[in-house]
Amino acid sequence: MIRTGIIGASGYTGGELMRLLVSHPQAEVVCATSRRLDGTQVSQTHPHLKSFTDLEFQNLDAGEVAKKCDVVFTAVPHGSAMDVVPQLLEAGTKVIDLSADYRLPTSVFEQVYGLKHKAPRDAVFGLVELHPEVRDARFVANPGCYPTGATLAAAPLAAAGLIERVVFDSKSGISGAGAEPSQVSHYPNMAENIQAYKLTTHRHGAEMQQELGRLDSDIKVSFTPHVIPSVRGILTTAHLFLKAGTDHSQVADIYKQFYEGKPFVRLLDGIPMLGPVRGSNFCDIGFEMDADGQRLVVVSAIDNLVKGASGQAVQNMNMMFGLDETTGLWNPAIFP
Amino acid sequence: MIRTGIIGASGYTGGELMRLLVSHPQAEVVCATSRRLDGTQVSQTHPHLKSFTDLEFQNLDAGEVAKKCDVVFTAVPHGSAMDVVPQLLEAGTKVIDLSADYRLPTSVFEQVYGLKHKAPRDAVFGLVELHPEVRDARFVANPGCYPTGATLAAAPLAAAGLIERVVFDSKSGISGAGAEPSQVSHYPNMAENIQAYKLTTHRHGAEMQQELGRLDSDIKVSFTPHVIPSVRGILTTAHLFLKAGTDHSQVADIYKQFYEGKPFVRLLDGIPMLGPVRGSNFCDIGFEMDADGQRLVVVSAIDNLVKGASGQAVQNMNMMFGLDETTGLWNPAIFP
Amino acid sequence: MIRTGIIGASGYTGGELMRLLVSHPQAEVVCATSRRLDGTQVSQTHPHLKSFTDLEFQNLDAGEVAKKCDVVFTAVPHGSAMDVVPQLLEAGTKVIDLSADYRLPTSVFEQVYGLKHKAPRDAVFGLVELHPEVRDARFVANPGCYPTGATLAAAPLAAAGLIERVVFDSKSGISGAGAEPSQVSHYPNMAENIQAYKLTTHRHGAEMQQELGRLDSDIKVSFTPHVIPSVRGILTTAHLFLKAGTDHSQVADIYKQFYEGKPFVRLLDGIPMLGPVRGSNFCDIGFEMDADGQRLVVVSAIDNLVKGASGQAVQNMNMMFGLDETTGLWNPAIFP
Amino acid sequence: MIRTGIIGASGYTGGELMRLLVSHPQAEVVCATSRRLDGTQVSQTHPHLKSFTDLEFQNLDAGEVAKKCDVVFTAVPHGSAMDVVPQLLEAGTKVIDLSADYRLPTSVFEQVYGLKHKAPRDAVFGLVELHPEVRDARFVANPGCYPTGATLAAAPLAAAGLIERVVFDSKSGISGAGAEPSQVSHYPNMAENIQAYKLTTHRHGAEMQQELGRLDSDIKVSFTPHVIPSVRGILTTAHLFLKAGTDHSQVADIYKQFYEGKPFVRLLDGIPMLGPVRGSNFCDIGFEMDADGQRLVVVSAIDNLVKGASGQAVQNMNMMFGLDETTGLWNPAIFP
Repeated sequence: MIRTGIIGASGYTGGELMRLLVSHPQAEVVCATSRRLDGTQVSQTHPHLKSFTDLEFQNLDAGEVAKKCDVVFTAVPHGSAMDVVPQLLEAGTKVIDLSADYRLPTSVFEQVYGLKHKAPRDAVFGLVELHPEVRDARFVANPGCYPTGATLAAAPLAAAGLIERVVFDSKSGISGAGAEPSQVSHYPNMAENIQAYKLTTHRHGAEMQQELGRLDSDIKVSFTPHVIPSVRGILTTAHLFLKAGTDHSQVADIYKQFYEGKPFVRLLDGIPMLGPVRGSNFCDIGFEMDADGQRLVVVSAIDNLVKGASGQAVQNMNMMFGLDETTGLWNPAIFP
Repeated sequence: MIRTGIIGASGYTGGELMRLLVSHPQAEVVCATSRRLDGTQVSQTHPHLKSFTDLEFQNLDAGEVAKKCDVVFTAVPHGSAMDVVPQLLEAGTKVIDLSADYRLPTSVFEQVYGLKHKAPRDAVFGLVELHPEVRDARFVANPGCYPTGATLAAAPLAAAGLIERVVFDSKSGISGAGAEPSQVSHYPNMAENIQAYKLTTHRHGAEMQQELGRLDSDIKVSFTPHVIPSVRGILTTAHLFLKAGTDHSQVADIYKQFYEGKPFVRLLDGIPMLGPVRGSNFCDIGFEMDADGQRLVVVSAIDNLVKGASGQAVQNMNMMFGLDETTGLWNPAIFP
Repeated sequence: MIRTGIIGASGYTGGELMRLLVSHPQAEVVCATSRRLDGTQVSQTHPHLKSFTDLEFQNLDAGEVAKKCDVVFTAVPHGSAMDVVPQLLEAGTKVIDLSADYRLPTSVFEQVYGLKHKAPRDAVFGLVELHPEVRDARFVANPGCYPTGATLAAAPLAAAGLIERVVFDSKSGISGAGAEPSQVSHYPNMAENIQAYKLTTHRHGAEMQQELGRLDSDIKVSFTPHVIPSVRGILTTAHLFLKAGTDHSQVADIYKQFYEGKPFVRLLDGIPMLGPVRGSNFCDIGFEMDADGQRLVVVSAIDNLVKGASGQAVQNMNMMFGLDETTGLWNPAIFP
Repeated sequence: MIRTGIIGASGYTGGELMRLLVSHPQAEVVCATSRRLDGTQVSQTHPHLKSFTDLEFQNLDAGEVAKKCDVVFTAVPHGSAMDVVPQLLEAGTKVIDLSADYRLPTSVFEQVYGLKHKAPRDAVFGLVELHPEVRDARFVANPGCYPTGATLAAAPLAAAGLIERVVFDSKSGISGAGAEPSQVSHYPNMAENIQAYKLTTHRHGAEMQQELGRLDSDIKVSFTPHVIPSVRGILTTAHLFLKAGTDHSQVADIYKQFYEGKPFVRLLDGIPMLGPVRGSNFCDIGFEMDADGQRLVVVSAIDNLVKGASGQAVQNMNMMFGLDETTGLWNPAIFP
């Protein structure tokens, strides 16, 4: 059994990691840290885990966690992972960081997040479908939720060198805003509403630019996020403007070939929705072409807490430990 | 024009009072107080009021408010109204208190709310349909949201002496929990959920007991509230156990006669829902009898922020100033 | 009093017309037609109108309706208005058509809707903010819901000749799909979901192209609609790519000047949301510029049933009868 | 591997059976019937099952199904199961009927459902926690969704002979109304609403009376159902009036003892909610006593499609085949 630890286990991504890991046949959670909730039952904060774990949150430092674990998930805010990652790595533990601290080159990170990086280290960007080198990694930076759905939607055509410009208009469930109550997640504000935010300046744009830029350095990327009255899920509508005309079957072939052998990407004939991926690690993708073959709208759907965070982290863990990438993750969504 | 003031205008009942009063043909809002938001635009906090008011929140004491106003609405938490009401009354202003401070006899209040009352005064209980003496009142205690819907559902049969026991099982929109974000109103906690709370101990039970007890002192009242994933509205399911058997048409007659001439009570042939009262001051009532004539289920629907709070307050104001009770309130619900 | 009639009054736009007209100080509804519901109470289908109207639906032909009315609203599906409009016009009645039959030049209509037009007539496109000639019109084609919010979002910059390309990514409440139950509006399919549809082929794109093309014939318009788990409202995110760089204050000035004296367009410093327009006739607009001044994201919010349909129709009626355009429409939204 | 078949597999309970069975380590679905969808992919109707099954719906008669299967689930409307159950049983197949046809004695069924029963047979009532004889059954009538949550809430105190009267006020997710669009499940009707229905006459009352009556023949049961704007889940608020006073710790002991060794009943210190059981087979139970010890409010929460239907059916299957009852069902809920 792989002994796993979670630093910062009281939030939604921490809870979701535990939901997935308590059913994982080859892994177990041996410690879950939280300063604030030290000594309380995990299942008090994550009530769906009652009967599945008797763990208590502990207030442990990174060194203590490293000693108990083969791999550690850092589910902390950006700016905090850099405080614990070096110590974990030096102790020889594998690390999967769910924060933003190691997804971008240091200079880009510092500019985008407006923070000095205290402890740069090289990490593999853990979007498994584009980064098979995760298999050999000891340190993985788990991608952001928006970049996961957006990048997977456009990557095949970017790799084919066909995209001139892409506008990602993403719609996220409100669980992406975290477990702490706030004005934006206050039910009367969110219900019967949709809120656009950071119209031109959301930090996740940098990850999209980086990952698509690796495939085609000329690509122009715009990104605007929204939150919708849904708990889970991100639907990304990718408006693609092409360099040259193409047709539906060519595009279909490009996607099919690109995602051959990627079990968690499902290519649909129709348009993806959130329901059929809810609670699962899938990314569903569908598209429609404009009559003139110059414009394409691609839609992707993921569960932001699974493929967009904790599920992808477990997928990374599977790869890093030589397991089949679907281990413990091969469950259908809950639908309806 | 009636000059009105609102003490504690930053919350939902304050915003709703202003929504109703900006369209009221005989009243205007001349001041809206908030300590925290002093000097900021009302329409920044209540964005739907943009273009309707240029008022700013002010941090005024009760005496200053009294000087400017013919009537003052106190939309403050329980325990706070008693700090301002005496001064307002002594200044000769009419007062409509939306808090719980003056709805119950002092001794009952102190027991139910666990507080010493600092400034007892006599108020008329402002459930207009049962208290025509509001017409002559200078000080009205506006009823709680749950007691409004529950009392109106059962009052006719209570007055007829037919009820042995009534169980009120109420389901409220989450706006009843206020404008401040909290765990219970956090979207991921409330969506796709329903939360029962204070199963046997909610304070509003005392108002129901008081009002129905005035009609029949033997009546046994139980009350359990819930919050549902809806912003507005309270549906109350009243399970009535009768002293003696009766039949459908007798019951229908009792309701019809009791609510004759009460424009805001609508008796339905079917079962009330929240949509057809949303944003309006109506209380819709419908019922169904058990085959044996011993048990009756009555359902009432109100908008908790209108008939359950601010609309009822304006209805009381209309009465206190000799206007038709529907003035400024005679608008259909927004449906769907 | 203006005597109004509604042909096809059983749907949501019919119900909403009546909601607005029962409170309108200068108009009354004298007939409401429905073949299917002939002889039943309007308030049975539109339960929020109970106590506001005793009208029954009638199965009348256009000629009978014309005789009773000064103006007729045709709230029927596209392809059906053309069956009644000519007769209404010939009878001398003013007509406001809420269908798509008269919004586009006949040849464009026939291509977009795949129908032969049986009775072409010239109508004024009833987007009052862009078409002051409504004042003199006897026949107005009320705009589609999506084109209203999209066109208002981009028109000022189009008129300034600044836009090279605009991508409208719109999110509509599900009431836009009508009162008839269907798979897409089935609660378990729509809740916790968002559905993109007609990714590149929605018919409303033609109206946007027409209206913005009037302001700048070179403009390139793309449009993708979605439905979200909200009953009312359309939020349109307009991604604008500019011909030349500009800055925030220039853009702000352009919008301010363009909408000077247009009471139903509210320019916000922040980002519009659906709540503050719900149930009202407002279109709220806000924007944010990219750092390089080449790209702009403008967001508009309307209530699809009010400014996107019935409210705008009443606004048109007001203009056509020489009333102030806000008559009967000057009410704040219901929020929260 | 247990070969299972599902008759009537196109609805929500059919889809949920397949969701559970594709992950079940000891069972597989070998046929799924649907007359209407004959020849189409199961994953077209149940899109979350894409990549999990290549089955097509087939139009098979009961005899053909019986030949292929060790156990057959009949997920058909009441009145239809009786057409296929006898043939299945005679072919020697085990049968779990999810319809209402075999839950009640024939005479009671005929009265409650207003139908003549064509093929009475004896079935075990498959509420495993009360009916350990399921272990030896060849034919199980899977309980209704409401009776499952209601009966489990009150059974311990009924068995203790303490209950004089119980009022079950239940709130169900709308998926209980099925996959076919209807007025009640139309999003604009259900959102921001709650609908009480069959206030005194819902058929599931008979099952509650039967099951609690087995434990205490004097008990008086009332039942009123509601649908709420939630896809899944039933929260039942049980208002219990006791024969004699008791106290909190006595009641806690009674529940603890009664549900000892029942893995799917979780007794909470707090009040159950829908989120922590969503997608899982748990029934969470909590309660609060009135100060005088005469009245108790017990709340239970289940997922109507899992413990209230398909999960319970799989739990029954596990028992009937000598497996641990948790096999394939031991997964936490999806929360939030």
